[in-house]
Amino acid sequence: MRMRKKKHRDDRLNACADFIINDFEKIKTEEKLFDNDNPVHLEIGCGKGRFITETAKLNPNINFLAAEKNLDVLLLAAEKIKNENIKNVKFFAGDANNFADFERGKVFDRIYINFCDPWKKNRQAKRRLTHKNFLEIYKNILKDGGELHFKTDNTDLFEFSLNSFADFGLNMKNITLNLHKSGFEGNVMTEYEKLFSEKGQPIYRCEVVF
Amino acid sequence: MRMRKKKHRDDRLNACADFIINDFEKIKTEEKLFDNDNPVHLEIGCGKGRFITETAKLNPNINFLAAEKNLDVLLLAAEKIKNENIKNVKFFAGDANNFADFERGKVFDRIYINFCDPWKKNRQAKRRLTHKNFLEIYKNILKDGGELHFKTDNTDLFEFSLNSFADFGLNMKNITLNLHKSGFEGNVMTEYEKLFSEKGQPIYRCEVVF
Repeated sequence: MRMRKKKHRDDRLNACADFIINDFEKIKTEEKLFDNDNPVHLEIGCGKGRFITETAKLNPNINFLAAEKNLDVLLLAAEKIKNENIKNVKFFAGDANNFADFERGKVFDRIYINFCDPWKKNRQAKRRLTHKNFLEIYKNILKDGGELHFKTDNTDLFEFSLNSFADFGLNMKNITLNLHKSGFEGNVMTEYEKLFSEKGQPIYRCEVVF
Repeated sequence: MRMRKKKHRDDRLNACADFIINDFEKIKTEEKLFDNDNPVHLEIGCGKGRFITETAKLNPNINFLAAEKNLDVLLLAAEKIKNENIKNVKFFAGDANNFADFERGKVFDRIYINFCDPWKKNRQAKRRLTHKNFLEIYKNILKDGGELHFKTDNTDLFEFSLNSFADFGLNMKNITLNLHKSGFEGNVMTEYEKLFSEKGQPIYRCEVVF
C-alpha cells in the first residue's frame, strides 16, 4: 500500500528515537540491542505495527525487532509503541535483504512474516519472502529449532510457500487453511488481516521449524 | 454415496472374474498378482473406476491394484476394465484396513487416494485415510521412496492431512491448493472430481514421499 509522506515525519521519527535503530550496522555488530538477555523475535514487514504491538504486550519476556522499509509506515508503528510505553520492541527501516550478510549468525528465536507481497508473476518468484533464497537467509539468522510463523490471505503465495518449505526440507506444523475457523488459539491479527477476515476471506497460516 | 444393489450383480461379477481377486489372502501371499514384473500401484477406494481406468491406459507398463469395498460400485469399475479390455488392473473388495497385517511388506511403488470420506467430526479423525495410523500402514506396504498421491475437495480434510503428513515426518511435494488452476499436468479426474471441479470447487492435491 502506498502512503503519502507524513507531515513532520522527521520530527516525529526523532521523537521515537528510543525505539528506532537508525543504523543497521548496529544490529549487525551489537550483541545486545535490548537491555536484557530475553529471546529476540524478528518481524519482517511490520506495517503499521498492530501485530507487533499486541504480540509484544502479550509476551513481555520476549524482545521484538521489527523491520519495515517504508518510513511513513514505520513511523505509525513506532508511535504506537511509544504511546503505549512498550519497552520490548525496536524497529529498523529495512527488510529481509538486510540480513543477507548477517555476521552475527543465529541470534533469533523466531521470525514472523505476515501478509507479505505475493509477487504474483512467475518471473517475480524470487522476490517472494518464502523463496528458497530467503529461506537460506532465515536459516542463517534463526537459532537451530527456531521457527518461521507465516500468514497470508493469498492462495497462490501459500501454495508456493508450502512447496518452498517442503523442498527446502523444513518441517511444518500447525498448518491452517482457514485460520479464523480453525480453532487456533492465540492469533494476533494484523491491520490487514482484521479487514480481510471480516470480509470472509480465509487466512492461511503455518509454522516452519529450522 | 449409497447405491442400490445392482441387478444380476453376482452374475455380472462372475463375468468380470478375470479382473477381481476374491480372496484377499491371495494378495497377502501371492507375489505375482500380474503376469509380469512391472511396478504395482494401489488405489484405495476406486469408486466407479474412472481414475484407475484412465490412469491404467496412460501407463500400460504399470500394474494397478484397486480396492473398493462396495461391491455394487466395484462391479461398475470392473465392467469398465473388462469392456475396454485393459490388462493391467485388478480389483479386490476391501479397503486400507486389509493391509494392516500385510506380511508381504513393501511391495507397492505408489498409493492413490482420491476424494476419500472426510469424516468431519473430530471423534471420527481416526477413520480418515490420512490419519497417522493409516500412514503407518502405508509405510509398511510402500517401497522406500514410494509415494502417496492424495486428492480431495474438502478443505478441512486437506488441512488435517497436511499436518498429519508433516507430523509423521514425511516429505511433501507438488502441493496444490487449486489443482485445476495450478497448471499441473497429467491429472486424471475421478467421476466426483469432474462433477465438482466443473462447479468451480477447488481441488486440493499433494504427493507424499515415504
